[in-house]
Amino acid sequence: METKTIDTVFVKHIRALIEQDLLEDLRAEIDNLYPEDVAELLNRMNGEESKQIMICVDAEKAVKVLVEMEGDVRATFLEGYEPKEIANRFIQHMDSDDAAYVLNQIAVSKKEQVIASLTDIEFASNILSLMNYDDYTAGSLMAVELVKANLNWTVQQCIEEIRRQAENVETIYVVYVTDDVERLIGLITLKNLILSAPYALLNEVVNKKVISVSTSTDSETIANLFKKYDLVVLPVVNALGQLVGRITVDDVVEVIKEEANEDYQLMSGITENVDATDKVWILSRARLPWLLIGLLGGIASSRFIELYEGTLKIHPEMAFFMPLIAAMGGNVGVQSSAIVVQGLANDTLGTQFIIPKILKELRVALLNGLICSLILLGYNLGFSESVDLSFTVSTALLSVIIFASVLGTFIPMALNKLKIDPAIATGPFITTTNDLLGLAVYFSIGRIMYTSF
Amino acid sequence: METKTIDTVFVKHIRALIEQDLLEDLRAEIDNLYPEDVAELLNRMNGEESKQIMICVDAEKAVKVLVEMEGDVRATFLEGYEPKEIANRFIQHMDSDDAAYVLNQIAVSKKEQVIASLTDIEFASNILSLMNYDDYTAGSLMAVELVKANLNWTVQQCIEEIRRQAENVETIYVVYVTDDVERLIGLITLKNLILSAPYALLNEVVNKKVISVSTSTDSETIANLFKKYDLVVLPVVNALGQLVGRITVDDVVEVIKEEANEDYQLMSGITENVDATDKVWILSRARLPWLLIGLLGGIASSRFIELYEGTLKIHPEMAFFMPLIAAMGGNVGVQSSAIVVQGLANDTLGTQFIIPKILKELRVALLNGLICSLILLGYNLGFSESVDLSFTVSTALLSVIIFASVLGTFIPMALNKLKIDPAIATGPFITTTNDLLGLAVYFSIGRIMYTSF
Repeated sequence: METKTIDTVFVKHIRALIEQDLLEDLRAEIDNLYPEDVAELLNRMNGEESKQIMICVDAEKAVKVLVEMEGDVRATFLEGYEPKEIANRFIQHMDSDDAAYVLNQIAVSKKEQVIASLTDIEFASNILSLMNYDDYTAGSLMAVELVKANLNWTVQQCIEEIRRQAENVETIYVVYVTDDVERLIGLITLKNLILSAPYALLNEVVNKKVISVSTSTDSETIANLFKKYDLVVLPVVNALGQLVGRITVDDVVEVIKEEANEDYQLMSGITENVDATDKVWILSRARLPWLLIGLLGGIASSRFIELYEGTLKIHPEMAFFMPLIAAMGGNVGVQSSAIVVQGLANDTLGTQFIIPKILKELRVALLNGLICSLILLGYNLGFSESVDLSFTVSTALLSVIIFASVLGTFIPMALNKLKIDPAIATGPFITTTNDLLGLAVYFSIGRIMYTSF
Repeated sequence: METKTIDTVFVKHIRALIEQDLLEDLRAEIDNLYPEDVAELLNRMNGEESKQIMICVDAEKAVKVLVEMEGDVRATFLEGYEPKEIANRFIQHMDSDDAAYVLNQIAVSKKEQVIASLTDIEFASNILSLMNYDDYTAGSLMAVELVKANLNWTVQQCIEEIRRQAENVETIYVVYVTDDVERLIGLITLKNLILSAPYALLNEVVNKKVISVSTSTDSETIANLFKKYDLVVLPVVNALGQLVGRITVDDVVEVIKEEANEDYQLMSGITENVDATDKVWILSRARLPWLLIGLLGGIASSRFIELYEGTLKIHPEMAFFMPLIAAMGGNVGVQSSAIVVQGLANDTLGTQFIIPKILKELRVALLNGLICSLILLGYNLGFSESVDLSFTVSTALLSVIIFASVLGTFIPMALNKLKIDPAIATGPFITTTNDLLGLAVYFSIGRIMYTSF
């Protein structure tokens, strides 16, 4: 079985099979696809077509398809089913975390009907309790399905427990070992379980070096733990130290991806998590806040330049270099803040070292500022600009580069100390600030150096 | 055992223990740390201190510490050892992929001496062949250590093979099943192995739905496979379909992290993969190319504005809104390109849909452009600017927003078609282009609408 690229040709082919009612051929095609690829196909189909396709999918695969579908496509798709059908056909075959995730995206009244229709009461109450955890915490990321064994059991008893739980727990990498009151003591990998003597006590073979998190640990901390300690699965304990769930690496990869996207979008001036397939007005709404801030900054700079209207009448050449100064300030500011934001996100930057960081940034800025200013000076002196203007522009450029890099370093670090996401400091915010700053420096230096100001 | 935050207080404490020669206490502290935390500690220590600390670490933990250390810290650290020591103390205890990774970062002559000092010839030749694969391919990411079993073996024989290989292969999630000529047929998870009857043939229990990649598959494709199919481990086959290695999710998390960082840095105008702890001149060098492009753009815009020197003498108020127009063009361009770059990186955007994407982007731009232009028009008419100037500025703003968003969408898609990393289109490149474009549009519209141009 090969992974499949769901391209336009394939979509057309499937659509044709549905239109011509060639259900045998359709089933053969769908059988040959991984659930993730079926989900991608459904993302491109309408509700009726999706239902036809899902008829060809067995129950186990169907739930995987449903979890992998895009949120709005899934919402539309589920509208075609009664709450009872949703419970029986899909939800009851899911892991608790997937079930809570899918249910949290449908309308409240329907959601409650679905949960009420579940026949397995323990499963239903698990879902209810998972839905109560805050987003982006361990509680919302974990699944309650796991295999645990008592410290006093033998390896053989533990293997029997795995056999008993095998149907509920799809992927098993480790068995968690708990004491008599369900507190997490350690873990044993399946590999070591296989290698241990059947009558050894778990107590003797348990690995007590186990990293765990509490239900309230935030997702960024969890992602950093997975990255740093190369984890595949992470147990979650409650305030009493009792084992309540586990987080698997695939969910964390999702978190890492989302966080990177979020920082990237904030830097590019987009405030909501959107992608290219979202609706026009959602895309507009996500972008408008930063555009309005940019507009405000632009209006402020126009008022500022207005103060120099008289000067510009006499020296219109001062205007030539306004865009250069503003752009360079913006570029340097973004470069500096990006390094800091990234360091903070990956937890590779101690916040206690704010002064040395700024001093280092100053040295980088001084070096780059000198290189750029000297090149500009050479160009201006060579190409017809007056000596006064040339020195004014280069001095202003050097100052702006230094100011911008200090601000670019300081602002995200300060925001971080204030517990505000430092990523908002990058992109349009820093560009707008530095535009204004740059112009102020430029005209002030002009006033000092330019003979007839 | 708890994970530990390596903060200044802890670093000072450890340093004091070393200075006062309290080796017992030092050993107790280090014993209590995970290898990843020891690595973080060593990143903050000098060569002599590091050696003292590593003496307290047992061989198995030492190799993990070494792999987790920062590249330049590791290079300095290894300078303190002879090639033979490096081979015996560290390399021979590593997985082949880690060994190749560490060796690739030390000087060629020393590297060869280290490999020649390895006593396990098979291991040494594995490392040599891994080092030959191109960076960012499956070959360079994979480890050759894995457990494989023949299709005709029984479950019991397979478990014996695991026992035999247990020492070489640290983490085992699945056993790969191959035919008589070592071609990959499928896999069996440890869970299913435990659940199967001991005398069942692997042929009967093998899962043939296995996703694999070839040694030359690039790392971005691999990362997308892990993300999409929620993989934990991925087998690698050669051109004959023979199993040659496996890639584990921890290495891929690293790839995902690096790729996100790279895109983020490109967007912020940084051309090399640097972090805040790098040296000043490396940081400068990484930023200078984009600053020089920005400088060039600034010089070009100064020449362009110079064409309008006479006009600016009569209408200096035209200069007031230059920064606003330039900044808004830049912001919109970055927003548009970011969405496209992200879509391409996550493989959620079909490149075949270039025209519909641009049309959609046009509608978003039109909506946001109208909102911004009308606000600006209201402000300008309300606050003293002339009617002519007010309409000129708002018309220019609308046009610039539309132009910038079309360019911002088109450029990364075009670069992608040309097999150039579209991420270079974001950030300074698009800002600089749009600065120029914005000014050209602004002055052209001024010429048409402004009565006395």
